[in-house]
Amino acid sequence: MASSAFLPELATQVLVPAAAVVGIAFAVLQWVLVSKVKMSPDQRRSDGGFAAGKSGGDASEYLIEEEEGLNEHNVVVKCAEIQNAISEGATSFLFTEYKYVGLFMGIFAILIFLFLGSVEGFSTKSQPCHYSKDSTCKPALANAIFSTIAFVLGAVTSLVSGFLGMKIATYANARTTLEARKGVGKAFITAFRSGAVMGFLLAASGLFVLYIAINLFGIYYGDDWEGLFEAITGYGLGGSSMALFGRVGGGIYTKAADVGADLVGKVERNIPEDDPRNPAVIADNVGDNVGDIAGMGSDLFGSYAESSCAALVVASISSFGINHEFTPMMYPLLISSVGIIACLITTLFATDFSEIKAVDEIEPALKKQLIISTVVMTLGIALVSWLGLPYSFTIFNFGAQKTVYNWQLFLCVAVGLWAGLVIGFVTEYYTSNAYSPVQDVADSCRTGAATNVIFGLALGYKSVIIPIFAIAFSIFLSFSLAAMYGVAVAALGMLSTIATGLAIDAYGPISDNAGGIAEMAGMSHRIRERTDALDAAGNTTAAIGKGFAIGSAALVSLALFGAFVSRAEISTVDVLTPKVFIGLIVGAMLPYWFSAMTMKSVGSAALKMVEEVRRQFNTIPGLMEGTTKPDYATCVKISTDASIKEMIPPGALVMLTPLIVGILFGVETLSGILAGALVSGVQIAISASNTGGAWDNAKKYIEAGASEHARTLGPKGSDPHKAAVIGDTIGDPLKDTSGPSLNILIKLMAVESLVFAPFFATHGGILFKWL
Amino acid sequence: MASSAFLPELATQVLVPAAAVVGIAFAVLQWVLVSKVKMSPDQRRSDGGFAAGKSGGDASEYLIEEEEGLNEHNVVVKCAEIQNAISEGATSFLFTEYKYVGLFMGIFAILIFLFLGSVEGFSTKSQPCHYSKDSTCKPALANAIFSTIAFVLGAVTSLVSGFLGMKIATYANARTTLEARKGVGKAFITAFRSGAVMGFLLAASGLFVLYIAINLFGIYYGDDWEGLFEAITGYGLGGSSMALFGRVGGGIYTKAADVGADLVGKVERNIPEDDPRNPAVIADNVGDNVGDIAGMGSDLFGSYAESSCAALVVASISSFGINHEFTPMMYPLLISSVGIIACLITTLFATDFSEIKAVDEIEPALKKQLIISTVVMTLGIALVSWLGLPYSFTIFNFGAQKTVYNWQLFLCVAVGLWAGLVIGFVTEYYTSNAYSPVQDVADSCRTGAATNVIFGLALGYKSVIIPIFAIAFSIFLSFSLAAMYGVAVAALGMLSTIATGLAIDAYGPISDNAGGIAEMAGMSHRIRERTDALDAAGNTTAAIGKGFAIGSAALVSLALFGAFVSRAEISTVDVLTPKVFIGLIVGAMLPYWFSAMTMKSVGSAALKMVEEVRRQFNTIPGLMEGTTKPDYATCVKISTDASIKEMIPPGALVMLTPLIVGILFGVETLSGILAGALVSGVQIAISASNTGGAWDNAKKYIEAGASEHARTLGPKGSDPHKAAVIGDTIGDPLKDTSGPSLNILIKLMAVESLVFAPFFATHGGILFKWL
Repeated sequence: MASSAFLPELATQVLVPAAAVVGIAFAVLQWVLVSKVKMSPDQRRSDGGFAAGKSGGDASEYLIEEEEGLNEHNVVVKCAEIQNAISEGATSFLFTEYKYVGLFMGIFAILIFLFLGSVEGFSTKSQPCHYSKDSTCKPALANAIFSTIAFVLGAVTSLVSGFLGMKIATYANARTTLEARKGVGKAFITAFRSGAVMGFLLAASGLFVLYIAINLFGIYYGDDWEGLFEAITGYGLGGSSMALFGRVGGGIYTKAADVGADLVGKVERNIPEDDPRNPAVIADNVGDNVGDIAGMGSDLFGSYAESSCAALVVASISSFGINHEFTPMMYPLLISSVGIIACLITTLFATDFSEIKAVDEIEPALKKQLIISTVVMTLGIALVSWLGLPYSFTIFNFGAQKTVYNWQLFLCVAVGLWAGLVIGFVTEYYTSNAYSPVQDVADSCRTGAATNVIFGLALGYKSVIIPIFAIAFSIFLSFSLAAMYGVAVAALGMLSTIATGLAIDAYGPISDNAGGIAEMAGMSHRIRERTDALDAAGNTTAAIGKGFAIGSAALVSLALFGAFVSRAEISTVDVLTPKVFIGLIVGAMLPYWFSAMTMKSVGSAALKMVEEVRRQFNTIPGLMEGTTKPDYATCVKISTDASIKEMIPPGALVMLTPLIVGILFGVETLSGILAGALVSGVQIAISASNTGGAWDNAKKYIEAGASEHARTLGPKGSDPHKAAVIGDTIGDPLKDTSGPSLNILIKLMAVESLVFAPFFATHGGILFKWL
Repeated sequence: MASSAFLPELATQVLVPAAAVVGIAFAVLQWVLVSKVKMSPDQRRSDGGFAAGKSGGDASEYLIEEEEGLNEHNVVVKCAEIQNAISEGATSFLFTEYKYVGLFMGIFAILIFLFLGSVEGFSTKSQPCHYSKDSTCKPALANAIFSTIAFVLGAVTSLVSGFLGMKIATYANARTTLEARKGVGKAFITAFRSGAVMGFLLAASGLFVLYIAINLFGIYYGDDWEGLFEAITGYGLGGSSMALFGRVGGGIYTKAADVGADLVGKVERNIPEDDPRNPAVIADNVGDNVGDIAGMGSDLFGSYAESSCAALVVASISSFGINHEFTPMMYPLLISSVGIIACLITTLFATDFSEIKAVDEIEPALKKQLIISTVVMTLGIALVSWLGLPYSFTIFNFGAQKTVYNWQLFLCVAVGLWAGLVIGFVTEYYTSNAYSPVQDVADSCRTGAATNVIFGLALGYKSVIIPIFAIAFSIFLSFSLAAMYGVAVAALGMLSTIATGLAIDAYGPISDNAGGIAEMAGMSHRIRERTDALDAAGNTTAAIGKGFAIGSAALVSLALFGAFVSRAEISTVDVLTPKVFIGLIVGAMLPYWFSAMTMKSVGSAALKMVEEVRRQFNTIPGLMEGTTKPDYATCVKISTDASIKEMIPPGALVMLTPLIVGILFGVETLSGILAGALVSGVQIAISASNTGGAWDNAKKYIEAGASEHARTLGPKGSDPHKAAVIGDTIGDPLKDTSGPSLNILIKLMAVESLVFAPFFATHGGILFKWL
């Protein structure tokens, strides 16, 4: 029936881990390069590295402080101190978070084992396979055990990814500040390299762990690939569960601190952002690292793990899955392997092949990263599809087999990849202050905060249109060509350049922190201008990163949803049946419920923070004058306590909904819930991220005053600027808490449904059975 | 197979028009009672009616002006003048609007004729029926002609409903102001009676026209009920198309004026709301009448017409439809007839059986209206279901016949009715300043506008949860019991108390205007306090009215969607097919697109209004001092021009989407679009309405200062109050433009698809056919 792939099994067995190792090595190399920026002033004097940097850089701008008579030694010491404070705060928060989440995950792991084990009453007997009824498969108990192990593995990998990302970011931010003294190009490279460390480490380790797990599980499962890849799905569930708590907890932490700091500092006391007199300033900077870095790292790792698992589980019942052809089976991992190499080449364009000279080159440089990685990766996909797949094969399509050609699968992956680029560009257009949408929003600040908010919300809503068309087009093409396998590999295509995506995404908070450190260390105004420019570009890249995360989440969840439906043995999900329709409408409501919880949490925590910051300003003598230090620790504690307490209800909503619905109402209603949450959540997620990004950059547009128009709105402290600050503050929870958590909601419910599908199919829907 | 109904055909033929006539007579009676409040001072002196009013009322509060030494003659003349100005402004705007909309509707009527006529190539030959293949039905050309006539009829009825509502409201607002001098009870009764005029007139005339149309069309169609009721569906399409433009045009008009007036008047110039010095004040008051009254009237008429049509078209292929049993066929109209009587009884509780004495009795009195009408109507439904339906009959259910009992249909109608009550109560809880949600939002104003907006958005999102469960429950029950017929009659159940719903809904803008007139006529502060209290309750009832409109829209569109799917000859709408899924996700995006357009329109028009108002304040000498009159006409023109121009793109989006999708992509994708728009739109609509209502009342809560807590936030002009005003302004386009238009979007796309279904089924989907 089907020809076989060019690439022999042995080559695949070598290539995949090799790519992972190359990725990790590249990350280490970047780290070494970043570490060359010394944080101890004594060493620096005797270090030749700087002299080299000087001769290569823009000599006239070398060390602004020295020109301005600032004490170089003090500045470096101060930066190191602040960096330590941020790093310690972040580490301590993450450990607290992990303690609580660890408990939850432990309980959930037990649930997985019990539920899946009970499918066949914990029997240790082998059973007929689910899809190929004439073969024998491992018992349900094995699925329970290995799913649980995979779940824990996914959770731990996600946790480590997030944690390492945070460590690197807090290692790099003061270094970026110090480099900013030498010019914007040097600072950009430092921030970008640090982002790359995280990007490559995460992409490579995700691939590596998955590869190892497949091989180890394979020892037990042997020829039972159906069972093997069903169990592997737990990896995606673990990764995403961890990501949910990371995003929500981190998101509440960072925005409670940010909103609280801004409301008192910028609005009431009229002191600059990140001013060291503000008691919430350390909490704010810690927040950037635990929310935007650790949370986002976990999130994208989760997407990657899920789309790989979705593709693998569907592939296990394709013709090459049934015939045990290893290379085509590993096609999803091959895509990721090539992705690492493509991103490696792309990174060199930002860090080595050229160096940016001026502030207005930052955004184009980042945009070039997107374009280059997409073009290089397109060639990579073509190569892998040609070498790694048989010319034709069949895919399981809701009960029927569908014939697919390798060039069709190439189209599926490529359409996902390019849809990602389209989403990236649209996001950039709507959130960068170089284009008219953000400028219009800034202009509406003339008439106050109300029009700013109205225009900002309208912008967010509008920014949904093209990404949805892009997603719809990729779904239509990949679904039509290769059913759910096509959709899963389209998601993988969008995520194949994850290393680059993460690098430019992590670059944002690192630059944000670098600016904060410059302010706190009392460095010159010109340094702050440079870091602000890096940060403004970072707002846009953060929005782009979220766009990718959401787009891929939509594709991934559809693929997981399809796999769930197949596994749950229902052949259609007909909207015009009462069970499905009520699921659909309630599912579409869940993102609202979830957003209500997270936004209220941020609001309440911010109120507490405001009270504390006001209290300190009112009761600590000498604080406003800068002669006394504020009590940073109390603010850190408020953020920590709020986020730990408040992440539970939204987390429970997402984790328990599939369980409750599956058990009480059964798989049809659950299908409706998944579809409803998917199509509704993706819209709110995109609009929330873009609205928030646009408000942030409208504010920065007025502050920077780079054009005639912008200057008529400014300067800082003018009425339009105050209106812009209000918009920015409203956007904070939208873009950094609710919005990005929603894509996890979508994915997580889908992957959880898939993992529990064997249980729901046998024991679910008790309410309807009972009626 | 089926028994027959108790009620003979003749009785039905008498009862339905009789109920309509009673409703119209009751409306006229209320109007006569309102007209007893004389607007000409000379007549009043010699009028005995007032003396009677005095002895019955609270004598100590009689005519506050006289106590305070204000000239009674001048006040009445001034009120009459202002009322005339508002009435003229509203009439002139509506005529302009109708001119443009008339053109559009004319073109659309031609499209309907051409598209439907082309189904059988404009053949005049009879054809086999669509559902009962062995009978002969009228030609497609007849369907084209009668659908077009029904469309025009629906549009005209909708137009007349809106226009009469506006006339009554502008007739009543100054009268309410004058009655407020005698006490809050008298003012309440006048406002409520005027609302009732509109409610009963609209409910009764909608029923009457539909009844006449069915009988007249029946002369041609004879026994071809399938064709008859298919053509009648055009009535719903006409009603809703008109409503769309009314809502969007009126919504943009009113909010451009409101936002513009507030931004300059309240925020910049620090003059009270509705101050006659504000150049936009007349436009603002005109807006309340063209947006909230005329727009809402058309909207609810549209819902009523569509749910009746949906029920009729499904019933025409039920067992009693096929057997031509007239009484059961007219069950939907019987429900509405009984509804008019039930509402009539309910109204007496507000106007005659008791009179409210104090401000805090207003909300309970309105709430009582909801409860009484629901309870009375439940008995009415039981009666109609027992007398008007055979004990058992069969309903067409996507290809199969389903047996239904009359008590089951009673449950379907009743669940819709009670779900409406639940939605009403939840809406009240989230938008009334008597409960903690609004108070929390008010409290968050302490820390500024940003937290106010964050809390307000979170409140709106949260307020979606219970209404969605209520809607889901009614859908599940009615769908399970009686398929799409059940859903359609559930929608009718929710709308059966429409006369009362409209009365309490219209009461809001009338009170709002009454307050405006009091302010403009320079009446005492105490009068303004009373009208403000009436208005605050009006904000809540407006939100409740919107809740009903949205809830019923969800049910109606599902029923229409079901009828469309049946007519379009597709048996399932499977989410897991690419054609349907892309429809679903794009459909879920449409409400965002639509909201982006309408919000941006309001924002831009408001900016223009702000510039004009500022210009007048800056260039007209003596304006701030009150010695010169502002140029009201220019502001009226700005609102008019903006709304006429800006209503076209969102209107076109809604009207053209089903046509384009149906023609290019076919009925499967169109099904997905309808389902996606429905489940996504209903959430945004509810949250937008409630967020806006909550912000408005949070502001009023601070202004009224009725509790210890409220006083710590006030008074007017304090920082928290300023933050509250910003929230209120943002909420304006959400609650009065985007939110309420979305339910028309949902319904209209569904009814349009149904009307065009014969065309799409034969000629649609050319893109896929061509590929």
